[in-house]
Amino acid sequence: MSDTDIILVAHGGGEGAEPWVQALAERLPQFRVQSLQGPFDPARVRYAVAWKHPPGSLVGLDNLQAIFSLGAGVDHLVSDPDLPDVPIIRVVDPDLTSRMSEWVLLHVLAHHRQARLYDWHQAEKLWEDDPHQPAAHEVRVGVMGLGVLGSDAARKLDMIGFDVAGWSRTPKVLDTIDTYAGAAELDAFLARTEILVVLLPLTPDTRGILNHALFANLARHSYFGGPILLNAGRGGLQDEAGILEALEDGTLRAATLDVFETEPLPQDSPLWHHPAVTVTPHNAAISSTDAVAAFIAGEIEHLEAGGAPRHGVDRGRAY
Amino acid sequence: MSDTDIILVAHGGGEGAEPWVQALAERLPQFRVQSLQGPFDPARVRYAVAWKHPPGSLVGLDNLQAIFSLGAGVDHLVSDPDLPDVPIIRVVDPDLTSRMSEWVLLHVLAHHRQARLYDWHQAEKLWEDDPHQPAAHEVRVGVMGLGVLGSDAARKLDMIGFDVAGWSRTPKVLDTIDTYAGAAELDAFLARTEILVVLLPLTPDTRGILNHALFANLARHSYFGGPILLNAGRGGLQDEAGILEALEDGTLRAATLDVFETEPLPQDSPLWHHPAVTVTPHNAAISSTDAVAAFIAGEIEHLEAGGAPRHGVDRGRAY
Repeated sequence: MSDTDIILVAHGGGEGAEPWVQALAERLPQFRVQSLQGPFDPARVRYAVAWKHPPGSLVGLDNLQAIFSLGAGVDHLVSDPDLPDVPIIRVVDPDLTSRMSEWVLLHVLAHHRQARLYDWHQAEKLWEDDPHQPAAHEVRVGVMGLGVLGSDAARKLDMIGFDVAGWSRTPKVLDTIDTYAGAAELDAFLARTEILVVLLPLTPDTRGILNHALFANLARHSYFGGPILLNAGRGGLQDEAGILEALEDGTLRAATLDVFETEPLPQDSPLWHHPAVTVTPHNAAISSTDAVAAFIAGEIEHLEAGGAPRHGVDRGRAY
Repeated sequence: MSDTDIILVAHGGGEGAEPWVQALAERLPQFRVQSLQGPFDPARVRYAVAWKHPPGSLVGLDNLQAIFSLGAGVDHLVSDPDLPDVPIIRVVDPDLTSRMSEWVLLHVLAHHRQARLYDWHQAEKLWEDDPHQPAAHEVRVGVMGLGVLGSDAARKLDMIGFDVAGWSRTPKVLDTIDTYAGAAELDAFLARTEILVVLLPLTPDTRGILNHALFANLARHSYFGGPILLNAGRGGLQDEAGILEALEDGTLRAATLDVFETEPLPQDSPLWHHPAVTVTPHNAAISSTDAVAAFIAGEIEHLEAGGAPRHGVDRGRAY
């Protein structure tokens, strides 16, 4: 075994570790970068870069300094009871935030401006405008989750002209946007929200929060004929049976979902072909490997130079 | 005949004059508000509110003080050789600007994020993300026409993160956005533009400007496979045979069109079912009757109180 320090890429997702190994090795030649596969000396692992790693696979790394979480969420890490007790560093990719807001704006505007209706009109060669189309300021959008992603989306929705409010676990101040906080103010937030955009982290408190009872508290815009749900947070936030029931009984008018209880979305899910559901394949905000590798390399160099960990995660809150 | 002064609604569009007659009568009870359908004393008409009026129908209004143009364009007015020589006042509807930018953002984002591809994937139950999706800052959008509408759209595209530039007939300064002006800088503007958004007025100089030769000067983004055109200005700007030819030979990758040489778009137009074309029925920015009537009532009261005409149109430039 070499005595070079190791960066371990612990990747359980579909694309695998290889692109990350290459991108990090290019930027950090002083380290050996390698995946969980193949022999390595656990005592030499100084950093782990993890995405849905097999639980328990980080045990015994006695010299581990920090774990980097690929992607904005860290629920895939903290759910491992054997996770080493070192700082968890969240990847901050400015592109990620911008990409997420692209998805939010695209899909809120698609509902607001009835994009699918007009696609159908085009297929039928129908030329019909709609004198009742509301302006954005006549539509109340609510953003659940006001972290980096939710705050950016809320600000951009506000700038386009929507009547925006936000809700978060703890109180936040967000420019001119009305904010609500905590369980005590959730109902008031829902009661003024016609289009609900969810960018919450997955925690024990938020698991399954998007259910029929919550949808029933949303406001109904007369033009849309019922509340509209957009979720690009985590699939574990949503009760998919409850979403389907709410769409059937009119509690929800439509839903656009980027995340699912099981991913990829199973072939037999009724969500695929429900006429009021838009499915995107968890691609609302994909980090570019280059941007994320550059961030991780910079943070490792900062730590190696004796800097304190930045962008840390509070494990108790799990975000 | 009564001796009450008249506001004449000269409306040649599909919806007809009646909603305007009602909305203005409510706000201006000191006037008689009526449509071209008779009878009325031409000498008592003080104001005309026009949209695609029959040419010549405003002749002989000897006491006319001003003509209000419904909608942002005035080509429908200045093309009438018998138009009375009084100030033309353009309707300024803040909702109109915001609505137009909604359309621009929706359709630029739909191309950028491949909305139609993912709709098709959903229909096929395909779960495929795309590691090559560029971020907005890697995509160069160009806005032709930097009036009230174009400037607002350009600023909002910039705020979302796109690499935005603008072109206008005369030089404009627009925050941090690169601007190009006049015929001399048109090619340089096109050469850096991968997604072209057109919000030009229709004038003798701009008629037919969107043709194959212009498209050939646009930049080609490797991800999109060719330039993308969006036109929500006027149908007369575009050469539809040239658009179809450019889509066939690869000079253009896709087009989203809200306006057409003939409207409604004829049933036999190949644009309806072209796989790379999105058709919307000239509804990018429909003014609400209420908002526009309130504006016109305010301007008439300003003129009646001795104020000078505001929001006037330069007939020589036709915008």
